[in-house]
Amino acid sequence: MNAYIISIGDELLIGQTTNTNAVFIGEKLSEININIIKIVTVADDESSIMDEFKLGIEKSDLVMVTGGLGPTHDDVTRTCVVKFFDTELVENEEVLENIKMLFSKRNRELTEVNRAQALVPIISEPIKNTHGTAPGMWIEKNNKLFIVMPGVPYEMKAMMNNFILPKLSEMLKESGIAIKRSILQTTGIAESTLSERLGDLDKILDGAKLAFLPSIVGVKLRITVEAEDEEKAKNKLVEIEQKIRTKVGRFIYGTDEETLEEVVGRLLIERDMKISTAESCTGGLIASTLTNISGSSAYFERGIVCYSNASKVEILRVDEDTIAEHGAVSMEVAMQMADGVKSTSGSDIGIAVTGIMGPTGASTDKPVGLVYIGYCDEKVCTGKKFIFGNERLLNKQRTMQAALNMVRKQLLGISLDE
Amino acid sequence: MNAYIISIGDELLIGQTTNTNAVFIGEKLSEININIIKIVTVADDESSIMDEFKLGIEKSDLVMVTGGLGPTHDDVTRTCVVKFFDTELVENEEVLENIKMLFSKRNRELTEVNRAQALVPIISEPIKNTHGTAPGMWIEKNNKLFIVMPGVPYEMKAMMNNFILPKLSEMLKESGIAIKRSILQTTGIAESTLSERLGDLDKILDGAKLAFLPSIVGVKLRITVEAEDEEKAKNKLVEIEQKIRTKVGRFIYGTDEETLEEVVGRLLIERDMKISTAESCTGGLIASTLTNISGSSAYFERGIVCYSNASKVEILRVDEDTIAEHGAVSMEVAMQMADGVKSTSGSDIGIAVTGIMGPTGASTDKPVGLVYIGYCDEKVCTGKKFIFGNERLLNKQRTMQAALNMVRKQLLGISLDE
Repeated sequence: MNAYIISIGDELLIGQTTNTNAVFIGEKLSEININIIKIVTVADDESSIMDEFKLGIEKSDLVMVTGGLGPTHDDVTRTCVVKFFDTELVENEEVLENIKMLFSKRNRELTEVNRAQALVPIISEPIKNTHGTAPGMWIEKNNKLFIVMPGVPYEMKAMMNNFILPKLSEMLKESGIAIKRSILQTTGIAESTLSERLGDLDKILDGAKLAFLPSIVGVKLRITVEAEDEEKAKNKLVEIEQKIRTKVGRFIYGTDEETLEEVVGRLLIERDMKISTAESCTGGLIASTLTNISGSSAYFERGIVCYSNASKVEILRVDEDTIAEHGAVSMEVAMQMADGVKSTSGSDIGIAVTGIMGPTGASTDKPVGLVYIGYCDEKVCTGKKFIFGNERLLNKQRTMQAALNMVRKQLLGISLDE
Repeated sequence: MNAYIISIGDELLIGQTTNTNAVFIGEKLSEININIIKIVTVADDESSIMDEFKLGIEKSDLVMVTGGLGPTHDDVTRTCVVKFFDTELVENEEVLENIKMLFSKRNRELTEVNRAQALVPIISEPIKNTHGTAPGMWIEKNNKLFIVMPGVPYEMKAMMNNFILPKLSEMLKESGIAIKRSILQTTGIAESTLSERLGDLDKILDGAKLAFLPSIVGVKLRITVEAEDEEKAKNKLVEIEQKIRTKVGRFIYGTDEETLEEVVGRLLIERDMKISTAESCTGGLIASTLTNISGSSAYFERGIVCYSNASKVEILRVDEDTIAEHGAVSMEVAMQMADGVKSTSGSDIGIAVTGIMGPTGASTDKPVGLVYIGYCDEKVCTGKKFIFGNERLLNKQRTMQAALNMVRKQLLGISLDE
């Protein structure tokens, strides 16, 4: 099956918005073996959109359209769909109910323009928008599939995950070749070191494919295996995963889309332990990331964002003399913060960070990117020094990931030096 | 002048690489008033590329191509250029010198495949690659301009900045039309309500363009104005901005790429005020967002992530009976949290949030998405109830934005009911 992706929006053409929708759709369709032949971006302009609809239907089996479904005058995608398929609009009751529900939930009055969003082309099956008012459209005609979604990324993603991908997968099931993919999530190791430790890849892979996908917080290893059937593909995948784990297992914290905060949360629940955080330079990012997980109140007790020295002393009982002697960014203060938040909160674990995120705040002996992470539990109090880069927001991310990884290693008994 | 951007590369289709090249080129061409009509991504495949070259030349004055110029077998862009323009390759001495120089600099021996990169189509003016071996191509034919660049972002950018953009600007100087753009950032108002409050857009715009760009945290209004010269365009832009501000000014927190956290930070600095945060449901996101701004230690004192009831009582002095009577998610607790963090930290402002982010934690009278935000300063203690959606992470974002917006409104004396 060949797919043609059409992204609609002036903001995508003039470089104001990066087309992450096409990235998401391309990735998800590839995963289910749909071949993307073209990605096109055009303006919110009727004739350009119509031209592209025509090309897409001609050249491919599946046309995926995003954008231009909003309620205002500059959104013309639905009008184009009606013209292209020579159909007409009809008010859909379920869609209208969904719009009404969203408005009443937000305590807002339903406006005429929003009510008009319940009008859908007769030819289409509307796709429920769980996050907004514009419905998607699923159109089957002449053995071709034409799918339209809103351009708002989270609305589009929810439609893809909840409706479109399951339905497409079902349609594709009978096709024949089995492809299996898995991802091993690593952190705390550079792409090149990872590659060196893995050694001769041909020996490990035996025809399968391995991609290194680096990001700010770690390197993902994506393994792709092809076989005659599901069972064989699955077995081969497991075999390759084991070979990789033998070589770099300590750096692998999770699989597929698992995040480090999920893994840490699971480990804490298994051990029936509670954690509290004390953050200076990350400003609350560690606590916020830990509490991104639903149910985190079972193991997250409190977090202190001790930006000022006064807050370090008053809430965490850090010694004023230690700050005066070693500075707020020091191993000594990081350890006292960790110990302080552990004991004042009555938690089993205290994790603390202090550092210089930049671009300002550096001194001769303390460069931008310098971070100390302290960790205390019932048995040990330890810490580690890191030097990250120059970018403030990236440094916050890296510090957060390193702190969570330190908790993971301590819980699993892995040495911090590894 | 109309431009057509063609990006070549399998990795862009399967979602492995985000097409940031097109973003860069789109932005840079827009800045010099070149109108991008389409961005297309195709595979490293001869027939797809040839089709696109044909369409590009037909539909536009300027075709910009990136990618597929590498030395390996899967790079076919140059071959396509030769076929498309029915021309032939010839070794270019300057290009060969550049390649030799790069190799000697890296202490590597020149291979045959790399030497072959010095072959350029006779019809083209080669563009020097200061960071790699593949030259770019500048081709003028039948009043059309056809430019080819490597896909490696820093190689492409250097060619754009050093050669292509200056040359294009020179060519465009005599053309005569000036375009100006600006963005007004709104929050706390839905796209449809914004549209209704603005009313008849034609009256406001008088030929200019207005785009509504919604995101999780607000709607951006992008105004685009065209006039005979820079001065006139600028004046017209200012005029339209003022008309929009008259109608929805209270919802506009900033212009262009300004964020709410920057605006709040600036207002606090101007007033020489300090803020502290008390967060339950957002788990530290408000503090983390405020401290994303370099220099925020000037106005951010501390943040308390009081996830447990114990932490609310111990650190923020919230009354245990109030929690027992009204629940932790209540207006009463939100206000006590705000007051508590203000007074215990000695800050001028305390802002506090408590809510149910979901998917779990709801009860009959307290649904997922329910949030109370409390605000206290020297003069007032106030609060507001919100009901957001079902998605935990989006709810965190929306709560954060609403809290910062409440601080902004209080500092500017704007009513919270508006």
